[in-house]
Amino acid sequence: MSEPVRILGIDPGLRRTGWGAVTVTGSKLAYVDCGVVTSDEDLPLARRLRALHDGLAGVVRAFRPDEAAVEETFVNRDAQGTLKLGQARGIALLVPALHDVPVHEYAASLIKKTVAGNGHADKAQIQAMVRFLLPRAEFRLADAADALAIAITHVNHRDAHALRQKHLPAGYSGRAAERIAAALARQG
Amino acid sequence: MSEPVRILGIDPGLRRTGWGAVTVTGSKLAYVDCGVVTSDEDLPLARRLRALHDGLAGVVRAFRPDEAAVEETFVNRDAQGTLKLGQARGIALLVPALHDVPVHEYAASLIKKTVAGNGHADKAQIQAMVRFLLPRAEFRLADAADALAIAITHVNHRDAHALRQKHLPAGYSGRAAERIAAALARQG
Repeated sequence: MSEPVRILGIDPGLRRTGWGAVTVTGSKLAYVDCGVVTSDEDLPLARRLRALHDGLAGVVRAFRPDEAAVEETFVNRDAQGTLKLGQARGIALLVPALHDVPVHEYAASLIKKTVAGNGHADKAQIQAMVRFLLPRAEFRLADAADALAIAITHVNHRDAHALRQKHLPAGYSGRAAERIAAALARQG
Repeated sequence: MSEPVRILGIDPGLRRTGWGAVTVTGSKLAYVDCGVVTSDEDLPLARRLRALHDGLAGVVRAFRPDEAAVEETFVNRDAQGTLKLGQARGIALLVPALHDVPVHEYAASLIKKTVAGNGHADKAQIQAMVRFLLPRAEFRLADAADALAIAITHVNHRDAHALRQKHLPAGYSGRAAERIAAALARQG
């Protein structure tokens, strides 16, 4: 029997980011766990983002996913809402990448179509299908069910992806540290 | 003489994130360094965000700022652009917070007014004033000059801020790790 592949689905949001962990062994899908990471609205934005980071990092360290999947964001809303979602989504994409886990993105309509057979399925239909596909799943919040739906979508599409070649992040020259040290030394 | 306070300004962008490091000792402002962290457009989004994270984390580790300042994002653009900027901005806010550095946010118009005396100043005016205020500053890219302008703005407004009480990030229960371990054990 082949080794189980661990898949983490993430449904990003500044107030609540859902996550869902499944394994796939050959064609057998199995539920592991799901939950929601929240951030306190009374905290400054940077601390809210850190709360999301720390929560997701705990999940990634505990579950050690082989692959992660994040919903492609729905941008048809007001600019402030889009910006907030973008900030939370940045964290959802970053945390697996910080642990060298490849991150795949799926449009909301593809997730609905994959899980419920209909790109316009409502939340109740998605949750019913997640319960059907993962009978052991226990979730109380829609965000966690959505994250499991994202993970299931990736399981169904991952064979179509050529595994992206891993390479180091580009762009940072690594020279900034030396320059700062020299400048501070000059400043005395 | 009082201890110098280290201030890091960050001008977020997915393609280029500018950073500028200054110190303030009493009322004396001094330039330390500035630069730009870039991300390769050919990489997947999660890896681009990691490149920004790694670059900014290198700056924060080298400079060890006491306080950071980030421009409040201009959202009057298309939804896709707002989302991209939001994702990069999430990283710019997160990285200082991960190092327990308090992050302050300033509107673009306040930055322009503080540095150039005019909330509608153009880039050339901002750069001229940054050169005047920080004669030792060396920058080739506008993003780095903007980041220094953000740092200068914070220096001018930081006395007005009551120092926010430091407290741990809320929201993450810390129980997810135990739940995942238990679920994996059940799965065998």
